Amino acid sequence: MSTKKSSVYEPLTESGAIALAKRLQLFEENSNLLCNEIGDGNLNLVFKVKDSKTEESIIIKQALPYAKVVGESWPLTLDRARIETHALLKQAEFVPQYVPKVFYSDEKLAITIMEDLSRLQISRAALIEGKDLLLLSKHIGEFLAKTLFYTSDYAVNQHYKKSLVKQFINPDLCKITEDLVFTDPFFDHDTNDFEPELGQDVEQIWQDQALKLEVAKLKQKFLTKAEALVHGDLHTGSIFADDKETKVIDPEFAYFGPIGFDVGQVFGNFLLNAISRDVENQEVLFTHIETTWNVFVEEFSKAWKNDGLEIFTKVDGYLEHVLSEIFEEAVGFAGCEIIRRTIGLAHVADLDSIQPYEKRISIKQLALTIGSELIKNQKTIKDPTQFKDYVKQTVNQ
Amino acid sequence: MSTKKSSVYEPLTESGAIALAKRLQLFEENSNLLCNEIGDGNLNLVFKVKDSKTEESIIIKQALPYAKVVGESWPLTLDRARIETHALLKQAEFVPQYVPKVFYSDEKLAITIMEDLSRLQISRAALIEGKDLLLLSKHIGEFLAKTLFYTSDYAVNQHYKKSLVKQFINPDLCKITEDLVFTDPFFDHDTNDFEPELGQDVEQIWQDQALKLEVAKLKQKFLTKAEALVHGDLHTGSIFADDKETKVIDPEFAYFGPIGFDVGQVFGNFLLNAISRDVENQEVLFTHIETTWNVFVEEFSKAWKNDGLEIFTKVDGYLEHVLSEIFEEAVGFAGCEIIRRTIGLAHVADLDSIQPYEKRISIKQLALTIGSELIKNQKTIKDPTQFKDYVKQTVNQ
Repeated sequence: MSTKKSSVYEPLTESGAIALAKRLQLFEENSNLLCNEIGDGNLNLVFKVKDSKTEESIIIKQALPYAKVVGESWPLTLDRARIETHALLKQAEFVPQYVPKVFYSDEKLAITIMEDLSRLQISRAALIEGKDLLLLSKHIGEFLAKTLFYTSDYAVNQHYKKSLVKQFINPDLCKITEDLVFTDPFFDHDTNDFEPELGQDVEQIWQDQALKLEVAKLKQKFLTKAEALVHGDLHTGSIFADDKETKVIDPEFAYFGPIGFDVGQVFGNFLLNAISRDVENQEVLFTHIETTWNVFVEEFSKAWKNDGLEIFTKVDGYLEHVLSEIFEEAVGFAGCEIIRRTIGLAHVADLDSIQPYEKRISIKQLALTIGSELIKNQKTIKDPTQFKDYVKQTVNQ
Repeated sequence: MSTKKSSVYEPLTESGAIALAKRLQLFEENSNLLCNEIGDGNLNLVFKVKDSKTEESIIIKQALPYAKVVGESWPLTLDRARIETHALLKQAEFVPQYVPKVFYSDEKLAITIMEDLSRLQISRAALIEGKDLLLLSKHIGEFLAKTLFYTSDYAVNQHYKKSLVKQFINPDLCKITEDLVFTDPFFDHDTNDFEPELGQDVEQIWQDQALKLEVAKLKQKFLTKAEALVHGDLHTGSIFADDKETKVIDPEFAYFGPIGFDVGQVFGNFLLNAISRDVENQEVLFTHIETTWNVFVEEFSKAWKNDGLEIFTKVDGYLEHVLSEIFEEAVGFAGCEIIRRTIGLAHVADLDSIQPYEKRISIKQLALTIGSELIKNQKTIKDPTQFKDYVKQTVNQ
């Protein structure tokens, strides 16, 4: 992988993407290259460049200087392309099998060139289609354990860790999470977006001081707890998968934050998919949640025992304490994710595609109840098997 | 205040310090300047430059590229002079009355030129002499509340706070604390320094897994909790005072850490002085501890209500939660400080000057017990008045 700093930023065109691929000799000489812009387009341009003969292809991703989701009026630093590239490279040190290969980056052009993963499907879409993605949670559990343990003070020289913290200070993207996950959904803010039928439920959240106190504590952890290099946006839309392979993409929100945040976003998105299904089809998602956590614990514990650099990793009970704190925080973060995906700015297709409308509303009401209960009961939920009980119990209330 | 970046570092001499003061026109033209190096000399050169006629004086402080305390073999970044200057300037935004004025700094020469405070006395020495320093704790409570609140996410724009975190990343000085406060005293490490008569007590600490588990959690908070710009070394040797005035100096350990760390070091050092005294003279120290906390709570709460920028500062119960977490952590940090000042590398004169020797040993044993108890009972000590009970109870055991 080589990195370059060009002098002037401008958005790439499809022909410009082809020219760049040629200049970098990423394909054989004289190959006939085709290009499509395939971004779903909130924050970035995504070009797929393909050799028409060999069918080999690459992805050229370029950050845009604004967030398309709210028009050009929300400026966003291009620095996130640097963050994404360096996060992918850092993660590849520990789990190369779960991240796309990076071939090239240019910080000034805000470009990252990487492996094309279109052989796989975005896991949110696959789960909505009812696919099982049998190995997804095993892979994600390992991805979480290794990327988080090996960037934490438990494993990393303390000087080097602080240089990483500095490298991954990411105010613009963190601000999006601070606002859209931890703040706006809990107050009557303009960015919120929900069906009028949810008005009473939403009002109840805004009035619930006990809930808001717990959200305040979770937001404070997101703001201050520089525990490990978290992905920062690890929902099922950031994971490519099929039955055999899993690739985590888009770490542009990466920064040093609480380990439980990544774990909680995974839990939250599996739960959102679970409740969008009929009861008889939910089991696979609860199994995914349990597997994620069990594999996480297994891999994290193995790494802790073999590679713990911090001398206190040898102290009795410390690993268990750290794991239980991660789990507790993950439960709370999952609750925040569920609520913000239901009434905040950025929805999920799992809920929004439910038909008919009345069913969608009642499942969204259920989501709000479950989200609130997870946040308020972080300390009583001790085990991933309890999520299932929680959902069933809430449905039967 | 002006800042300069010279090209080459070299240690100043006394005549060089005078030349610098003249060049910067810090005194009247043609004044006759005298200079003495007055540093107690662990990490820095400290020159006092005085006009022999007007008696006006300034301090020129220059960081050395190594820690004298362990010889030249422990290299230390000169960057700490930058940290110190910027911490003093930042603190002066909120409490100019409690920090020395900064006149000039030069990052490459690692020099900070500041107000001479020799009209005051180092508060550790004053307390050892039995002076009351009546306003010390009122001032320190306010210093803590304002410097910590106004550099936290509760008060600061989140983009700006992250730029401050980056500016104050301070690996070398943090590493000293990580090792000397949180690690070495709890293991059989070479840096430890204690009388042979304490061998059994020290062994007991090294064997105490419950204690070490709590220290592990406290160290982890020191490593990861970027809550506010802490002073980082706020013992009574870093405070100049008399009965009317208080000035906090030497913030070269400043970084974004847990608020409770600064509070705990103040508690710990007041406690160390208290137990070094005969029982009938301890009361003033317990009053200092209570006043520190009460004034801290009062000023922090006022600032929270008037200047809370974070929307969740309006949520019922959040202030109380934050204060109780700060107190709990401060109790634990105080315990670590007491233990490391008794058996670690850097002792305090409060204990080391106790005569006769047998009394010194028995008070050091008491210190170790109190330190351990504070660490293990962080959750049961809820109020600063309990420190006194704790000490008395431990003495009577």
